[in-house]
Amino acid sequence: MRTPLRLGLAGLGTVGASFFSLVERQGGLLAARAGRPIEIVAVSARDRSRDRGLDLGKVRWFDDPAALAADPDIDLFVELMGGAGGAAEASVRAALAAGKPVVTANKALLAAAGLDLARLAEAQGVALGYEAAVAGGIPVIKTLKESLAGNAVSRVYGILNGTCNYILTRMEREQLSFETCLAEAQRLGYAEADPTFDVDGFDTAHKLSILTSIAFGTEIDAGAIYVEGIREITLADIEAADELGYRIKLLGVARRTETGIEQRVHPTMMPKSSPVARTDGVLNAVAIDGDVVGEIVLVGPGAGGNATASSVLADVVDIARGRISPVFATPAADLAPYVSAGMLAHEGGYYVHLDVVDRPGALASIAGRMAEKGISLESIVQRRRKPRAEAPGAARPEDPQPVILITYATTEVQIRDALAAIEEDGHTVAPPRLIRIEDL
Amino acid sequence: MRTPLRLGLAGLGTVGASFFSLVERQGGLLAARAGRPIEIVAVSARDRSRDRGLDLGKVRWFDDPAALAADPDIDLFVELMGGAGGAAEASVRAALAAGKPVVTANKALLAAAGLDLARLAEAQGVALGYEAAVAGGIPVIKTLKESLAGNAVSRVYGILNGTCNYILTRMEREQLSFETCLAEAQRLGYAEADPTFDVDGFDTAHKLSILTSIAFGTEIDAGAIYVEGIREITLADIEAADELGYRIKLLGVARRTETGIEQRVHPTMMPKSSPVARTDGVLNAVAIDGDVVGEIVLVGPGAGGNATASSVLADVVDIARGRISPVFATPAADLAPYVSAGMLAHEGGYYVHLDVVDRPGALASIAGRMAEKGISLESIVQRRRKPRAEAPGAARPEDPQPVILITYATTEVQIRDALAAIEEDGHTVAPPRLIRIEDL
Repeated sequence: MRTPLRLGLAGLGTVGASFFSLVERQGGLLAARAGRPIEIVAVSARDRSRDRGLDLGKVRWFDDPAALAADPDIDLFVELMGGAGGAAEASVRAALAAGKPVVTANKALLAAAGLDLARLAEAQGVALGYEAAVAGGIPVIKTLKESLAGNAVSRVYGILNGTCNYILTRMEREQLSFETCLAEAQRLGYAEADPTFDVDGFDTAHKLSILTSIAFGTEIDAGAIYVEGIREITLADIEAADELGYRIKLLGVARRTETGIEQRVHPTMMPKSSPVARTDGVLNAVAIDGDVVGEIVLVGPGAGGNATASSVLADVVDIARGRISPVFATPAADLAPYVSAGMLAHEGGYYVHLDVVDRPGALASIAGRMAEKGISLESIVQRRRKPRAEAPGAARPEDPQPVILITYATTEVQIRDALAAIEEDGHTVAPPRLIRIEDL
Repeated sequence: MRTPLRLGLAGLGTVGASFFSLVERQGGLLAARAGRPIEIVAVSARDRSRDRGLDLGKVRWFDDPAALAADPDIDLFVELMGGAGGAAEASVRAALAAGKPVVTANKALLAAAGLDLARLAEAQGVALGYEAAVAGGIPVIKTLKESLAGNAVSRVYGILNGTCNYILTRMEREQLSFETCLAEAQRLGYAEADPTFDVDGFDTAHKLSILTSIAFGTEIDAGAIYVEGIREITLADIEAADELGYRIKLLGVARRTETGIEQRVHPTMMPKSSPVARTDGVLNAVAIDGDVVGEIVLVGPGAGGNATASSVLADVVDIARGRISPVFATPAADLAPYVSAGMLAHEGGYYVHLDVVDRPGALASIAGRMAEKGISLESIVQRRRKPRAEAPGAARPEDPQPVILITYATTEVQIRDALAAIEEDGHTVAPPRLIRIEDL
């Protein structure tokens, strides 16, 4: 047996602790797959005294992860601290600068500094592995980088955040509100105390930015992504989607268009028959359209300590075997600048929810505004609210009533113009809400 | 740019011709991914004069694929002839013996001689790639070998034959017979003139044998697989499955048990909610259960020239990059002998279809035989056939009536014993048919 590959591990949170345990538990298997033993020889974490149920007696402790990363007695640095910038970025840079390969699960770091880190890694001739950064245990990075190497990708999309998918699935199944399901997700540990990062779509955007770079050979530009989260989704929307044959999922979508690469994160009504639409709970699903192969769909656990650690282990074994490739498949120097297609150019169908003052001519005015902007309506439905208890049998004329419009394919700029005009006309009592429809 | 990787290609059928075209069409992409140009410099096929719509003017022609395989002016041999033994095996052996890496889509060859070829490749220190041999364009080989390197796999199963899945899907959707759907599949080019290899399950078995070897680190033993095809499946079975909440799919299943590795191919009733059960038409789907990651499901095109060629391209790029690993993940010398769990030890639920002579006591006798063998019945349904036209209102007492039994989990040996006893009793007029039920 060859000499062991010595790992330095920074971060002993959920994923880090799982990884630490697994390296020992799966030792025989890893050695067989890697062709040499794999050992964690040094660790760093925020609090040395905290009991994590791990036997840290045999490994060296570093208070400073950057010092660990550059330590001459480690061969590979595993960064599982998380967070863009700060100690995570400093230590990854220290490892790469010291000529050591790095494995990380840190999507925020890659979204922010991935291009620069790729340049550094490639200049040093060392690997930077990040399978665990996108869709947890699902091998989407390797599939895009290696398995579809002969394909020009036209589109990649999917459910990349288990927290949002859990919330939407429970809302739909149990007819519960967003707030109730979020609280449940927090109770079960699927959502953070501050859920912004997940439910407002930023986590999905970080992951999407990484997929986009690989799929289209462009420089990462997470800031260019159009991002909408799921806070505004109501049970009424979910019911309307169901009636239309759709389910609502928070999707990240990247697509090549004639004018550039479209990147967007938003709730989407998608046909129930799609394998991605059928992905429930905390699972993730990613679909990749290649010009040669057609569509490949990968489904699996998108989060959790072990599932994520499984992907970290895969990267470690690849590096142990010397199976390396440019960080984003195309060498960093050859990545094209990212050219955004711009959200306003997006084309698709729209579901529009309006709260309309119930008076003569309101609907006609709304329909007229849509027609003016060249938008064809597939349907327009006024859902009359139950009349108030104190006035049985007769809704008061001025009570707002929900109106749902479904458009045929149009552009984002057209629908936004139309909705602005409708608001201006004063027939609505709340800002219009829209959900994009895609026949994925 | 580095020197080109020079390919010798044997076989210009559907996959070979697609591959030939794609190497040129995707040339820029491949060179970027591989870090060097990829060129086909020589080809061999059965008939030189046949017009395939390919410009073969720039490549050398070999009548003998084995001579091509060993030619000093090629760097990698791509075998897309197909067929176990014969020219395919001889040429792959010639390439490996000459120290050249090989990429093949030939599952029959691997099922028959994969272990020996792996030994040869590893002794020579060259790669033997075969992503295209299982599930066409779906990257299941790489996922098992590399992405799940840190996982002990407990089970791998899936739809591995698009022809059978197409037939079963059409039977179900359009209420057509097996024979009609087979004829349609033949007309559309999804099935061969002699469909035995596909519809009787052998193609699935070959692919399963390869997955088993990687997943469990055992020597390939395709001959040990229990194989049943889909010829006996009737519309009545499909309807009964639907009522029970199941769909019928031809599955290949490999599973670790206490006594060995179970490998089987047979029609299976599986819950409609399973992502594999929802895979329709010519698509394939593979599910892998890893002890660390949980379940990963991969869905995509399982056949077709381009989809299969996409996987061949991926292997070529891996070899160009020097990303290689033992052929079946575990070095051939360390693969354990395959120990079969034996089909008789299989445990599960069963759907049993009996054609029972309609006379007093028949059902009681049948139920009694099941009880004697310790089999609990979840349900027993006699579906009375419509009475004959000449005797309206009254079925003739001796007309056979279909009876469907659904058992709770039992073993294959128990159910077979029980059915043998029932046949012996003479209440049935045709051999019992059974379909295994799995809560996958």
